Amino acid sequence: MSKALVVLSGGQDSTTCLYWAINKFGRENVSSLTFDYGQRHKIEIESAEKVAEMAAVSNQVLPINTFSALGGNALTADIDIQQTADSDAANEKSYLPNTFVPGRNLIFLTFAAAYAYQRDIENLVIGVAQTDYSGYPDCRENTLNSLEQTLRLGMEYNITIHSPLMNLSKACTVELAVKLGAMDAMAYTHTCYEGTQPPCMKCQACILRAKGFAEANVADPLIERCRFFHNC
Amino acid sequence: MSKALVVLSGGQDSTTCLYWAINKFGRENVSSLTFDYGQRHKIEIESAEKVAEMAAVSNQVLPINTFSALGGNALTADIDIQQTADSDAANEKSYLPNTFVPGRNLIFLTFAAAYAYQRDIENLVIGVAQTDYSGYPDCRENTLNSLEQTLRLGMEYNITIHSPLMNLSKACTVELAVKLGAMDAMAYTHTCYEGTQPPCMKCQACILRAKGFAEANVADPLIERCRFFHNC
Repeated sequence: MSKALVVLSGGQDSTTCLYWAINKFGRENVSSLTFDYGQRHKIEIESAEKVAEMAAVSNQVLPINTFSALGGNALTADIDIQQTADSDAANEKSYLPNTFVPGRNLIFLTFAAAYAYQRDIENLVIGVAQTDYSGYPDCRENTLNSLEQTLRLGMEYNITIHSPLMNLSKACTVELAVKLGAMDAMAYTHTCYEGTQPPCMKCQACILRAKGFAEANVADPLIERCRFFHNC
Repeated sequence: MSKALVVLSGGQDSTTCLYWAINKFGRENVSSLTFDYGQRHKIEIESAEKVAEMAAVSNQVLPINTFSALGGNALTADIDIQQTADSDAANEKSYLPNTFVPGRNLIFLTFAAAYAYQRDIENLVIGVAQTDYSGYPDCRENTLNSLEQTLRLGMEYNITIHSPLMNLSKACTVELAVKLGAMDAMAYTHTCYEGTQPPCMKCQACILRAKGFAEANVADPLIERCRFFHNC
């Protein structure tokens, strides 16, 4: 059985992908990689480490100090996050939400491929979805297909990028996570743009997550955990 | 006239590309970007800054701490550089020289594209050549064509990658540099794997450089400068 590396952000989608990979490749063949790229909230990295621990797979945190040096976006810099992008104009560069870090997933996957290359891992798994509200162009299927080809040529290595959530709605992603037994770990994931636990439930990320769980008619284990312990 | 960003390593090839870009796009439209990626010798970065100064274009140094964290190659780690790779077996991953950093140029160009995106620069220029001895797969034309397509899709941005040295021999690159008036700056470039000035003249990089200048019947201004000043 070939080996797989999951890009694990500590969020709902990458956690679902981790369990998808365990199901497909076998737990002993799966490892995870988390990027410390200057995200505003270190809780994301702690969540990834906790999720990997609960899934009993190894996790490596790899630093990237370049995005902060590039500057200019709300996910790494001290800029207010726009809660809405003008989705009618999503093809226009200036109308992308200011959480857009140009090429972020391209960089993540290229570093992941370099890491995989050195360890004879031939499968990368990432939790992007083109059904997402954001319109990020580096989350689309045609971008990832092109990147896979670029990585194969540029490393002379037979790497495959899997994005099992690509065409799933948030509700379907929740159903998949339930089916894969990811709910215990899901209680430790982090989604909120504000970086708080309990989550703020007001930011775009919290609203999207809540909508997915509601439509799937599943209680969000993170909310349950926060209720039970009063704080997390 | 559109703007151009040159990936400037401080070596002979990227310096030639800087002058190529000035010739093609006009000095006022050209800027340069140097990566501080944990290379063994900081003299490379100093050379890039000096070359940019001599060419009267701006230079930005951008840090990447990820390659050192990935480890395992001779250009960033404390590993002896192999002087020869088995070129008959260059398609086999294990026979690439241990100076191969998997995906290095893919990462450089993707970060350069992100930098360019934020500044409305639509042209990237890089000094890679598939005629090089090394057989690095991320220096080949088909890799860069594929990457250009990936960047266009992943950033929704009309970026073009120029690699003017792609199919030139080292001798032709020297002739081009002479024609473009790059020789004054060439005296401050750095090539030697050992990181010394005067260059060691024994490593593979020094030998390749000397061969190019000899075949073009041009004196290397770096050697002239070192002779004149006894040290650099």
